[in-house]
Amino acid sequence: MADLSKVGPFGLNGLTATAASRKLESGEITSEALVSDCLLRIKERNTDVNAWAFIDPERALEQARAIDKIPRRSLLHGVPIGIKDVFDTPDMPTGHGFKPYKGKMWHAESKCVSLLRDAGLLIFGKTITTEFACPQPIGTMNPHNFERTASVSSSGSAAAVADYMVTLANGTQTGGSVIGPAASNGVYGFKASLDGIDRTGFRHCKPSIDTIGLFARSIDDLILLRSINTGQKRAAHLDVEIRPRIAIVRTASWSDAERCVQNALNYTISVLEKAGAYLEDVQLPRRFDDLINDFSVVNAWEGRRALAMEVKNNFSEFNGYNRERIRFSDSLSEKEFLRSSSLLNSARAKMDKLASNFDLFLTPSLPGEAPIGTTELRTPVYTRLWTQMYMPAINLPLFEGPNNMPVNVQLVGRNNFDAQVLLLAKWIDDRLRESVQRLPIRL
Amino acid sequence: MADLSKVGPFGLNGLTATAASRKLESGEITSEALVSDCLLRIKERNTDVNAWAFIDPERALEQARAIDKIPRRSLLHGVPIGIKDVFDTPDMPTGHGFKPYKGKMWHAESKCVSLLRDAGLLIFGKTITTEFACPQPIGTMNPHNFERTASVSSSGSAAAVADYMVTLANGTQTGGSVIGPAASNGVYGFKASLDGIDRTGFRHCKPSIDTIGLFARSIDDLILLRSINTGQKRAAHLDVEIRPRIAIVRTASWSDAERCVQNALNYTISVLEKAGAYLEDVQLPRRFDDLINDFSVVNAWEGRRALAMEVKNNFSEFNGYNRERIRFSDSLSEKEFLRSSSLLNSARAKMDKLASNFDLFLTPSLPGEAPIGTTELRTPVYTRLWTQMYMPAINLPLFEGPNNMPVNVQLVGRNNFDAQVLLLAKWIDDRLRESVQRLPIRL
Repeated sequence: MADLSKVGPFGLNGLTATAASRKLESGEITSEALVSDCLLRIKERNTDVNAWAFIDPERALEQARAIDKIPRRSLLHGVPIGIKDVFDTPDMPTGHGFKPYKGKMWHAESKCVSLLRDAGLLIFGKTITTEFACPQPIGTMNPHNFERTASVSSSGSAAAVADYMVTLANGTQTGGSVIGPAASNGVYGFKASLDGIDRTGFRHCKPSIDTIGLFARSIDDLILLRSINTGQKRAAHLDVEIRPRIAIVRTASWSDAERCVQNALNYTISVLEKAGAYLEDVQLPRRFDDLINDFSVVNAWEGRRALAMEVKNNFSEFNGYNRERIRFSDSLSEKEFLRSSSLLNSARAKMDKLASNFDLFLTPSLPGEAPIGTTELRTPVYTRLWTQMYMPAINLPLFEGPNNMPVNVQLVGRNNFDAQVLLLAKWIDDRLRESVQRLPIRL
Repeated sequence: MADLSKVGPFGLNGLTATAASRKLESGEITSEALVSDCLLRIKERNTDVNAWAFIDPERALEQARAIDKIPRRSLLHGVPIGIKDVFDTPDMPTGHGFKPYKGKMWHAESKCVSLLRDAGLLIFGKTITTEFACPQPIGTMNPHNFERTASVSSSGSAAAVADYMVTLANGTQTGGSVIGPAASNGVYGFKASLDGIDRTGFRHCKPSIDTIGLFARSIDDLILLRSINTGQKRAAHLDVEIRPRIAIVRTASWSDAERCVQNALNYTISVLEKAGAYLEDVQLPRRFDDLINDFSVVNAWEGRRALAMEVKNNFSEFNGYNRERIRFSDSLSEKEFLRSSSLLNSARAKMDKLASNFDLFLTPSLPGEAPIGTTELRTPVYTRLWTQMYMPAINLPLFEGPNNMPVNVQLVGRNNFDAQVLLLAKWIDDRLRESVQRLPIRL
């Protein structure tokens, strides 16, 4: 992980969820104390980072005191989590990054939030999203360097966790909206399989692709949080070969990756080779590259339908990106949508077959360090395909590039193999950590 | 359609949505008058039918008067629709057929309901569902014969439309919960493709399979309602061959079908042959029959997760069927789920390929007339496969069996081809209607 200590001194807000939960369980700390330190951090830093769409310090503390008083409901009882501002909560507004919805109360609770609340986590506040989770940045800055972007679209969640403003956060991904910001801000990110975390109550913008994800500062945190967010009784156990089979996918965009990204992948490969993993360079069949246009057609068509009411009632209030996409979708025929949708479905089956030969795919997360500025719309070249194929993905943030910004690798698993992929990611994370005296791994 | 005139005299509540909308548009009738007649019908008949989980006559009339005053927003402006009691509405409770949730306000609005409200339809009341849409009946009786079942799980929606208590209704299907009740009660039913109608805000019980559907008393009504419920600007146009390619799928359960069901299918075939359709008997590859166990595993696994909170907090309050399924799911390993889920995904691609050779599949809806009593749990043998393959399906209720109960045929289309399949269903409906002097077609 990039050297996060440089982002300033911190108190209990610096703990991982796993560490905090041990202290909460033993009574060494209270949720109120943990939340106080998070709030302090936000007060100091949020003017620069701009990670929060909604936060009410008094209510957060009140909630923490209430949670401190009741019997512990799960291992994460009392741990605060930031909720991406696309998930409804009955006690806070949900703005979807859309001006007309700023401050709007929807009164509902997304299922994934209810599961967390029911497990005693503290629903801390709403983190900034781009407008309907589109790729146009909305002004959240990278805690490692305020001149650089925090990426899109789960910008606030990733930045808030990276900046120790909150212990955990959630997000969503349709292109690269979890892995991208996790990588830009240097935190662990997990994008579930399509239905790996229940999407009930989540407002879809691309119903066949939108997926839920999680952010944390350790892989153990992700494993624990995912198990609670899927309502599981038992934690999963590692069920991989002694010698995990890993496919290295450099992709057609390999030559566009910055040198530090290439180095991070190559370094990971060398560590895994030494650790006894079976590694194989895999070039995906051309047909998968050819799907780019089909992604675009299906996304536009579904997006147009999902936003039908807003298009009718508030078209002029969309940002430029969304207006352009809506116009593009209006130029499409249903036949084009049907053709693309059918091609994607058949590609999913082919990918499922291909992926069954491996325990996971190793590939970059982003083409480089987070760039300067807030205007760049980067195509999520290393994430889009996996999202559209419903596959779970994990960002490992263990490296640092020439500009002292996080550099990462991505692990991708078979559709629905979320638990196993996380456990294997832990095995890889451990090997990488053992390989150096001190993190981050400089490239 | 079975002889529905026998269910008693009626007023404006007897109109189809298409007929009512013409009269509403011309000012010949008001929404208030239409709603009044629906309420009258409910007062007369609901003690016997038991179709409504929630209805507030005063509020419905008030809403109708308000809608009458504003400019028309769509062709269905002012038409009342019943909402299955699994969709949240901010102005009415949603009970999910689950005792602890009786009368519970969730304060949210499911997206599919918002789209209807935004188009000026009148959100009339909540129709009875079985507990979390499971197959155990909940006491809604068939308007054609109160001793017979209204089927499951969208029981109230189908019975209310069949009994002229409301003009339109919606529902959901995971096994056969739209096509089954539509067929039992003798109304037109449409189950969308998996994402054919936006599931945002719908509480999933089986996230990878739950699908939204619609009920009406004419195929034109279904076409109109679907187009509004998908937020489409333009109505679809028929894009099939002059000579539609229809696959006849008698299925492995053909010999279990009652004679009247077999006759309905054979009659339909003879009419379509005369009308110039290309017909081919298709036996689905054995692999599709072999998926029964995989359906069961995936449904149980997903259901267990989706109901995690209720299992923890309210297990003893589930009905016997759901308790048994939860216990079964607890006996499953994640490996079993992963294997079954992967087999289903690959079957989906194979089905997509197979289905692309035809414009639609013709098959039974139910094995027979609605049986006597309220206890029978029928396996949805003619619908389960299509639901799991994400395919759109339509019930045509044009026949009547030896017990004077509705008998039906089912039309199934390719995944996402919802608009075209509805238009082709209209072509078939027209041919069947032309073939007799008077409906229903007696078998």
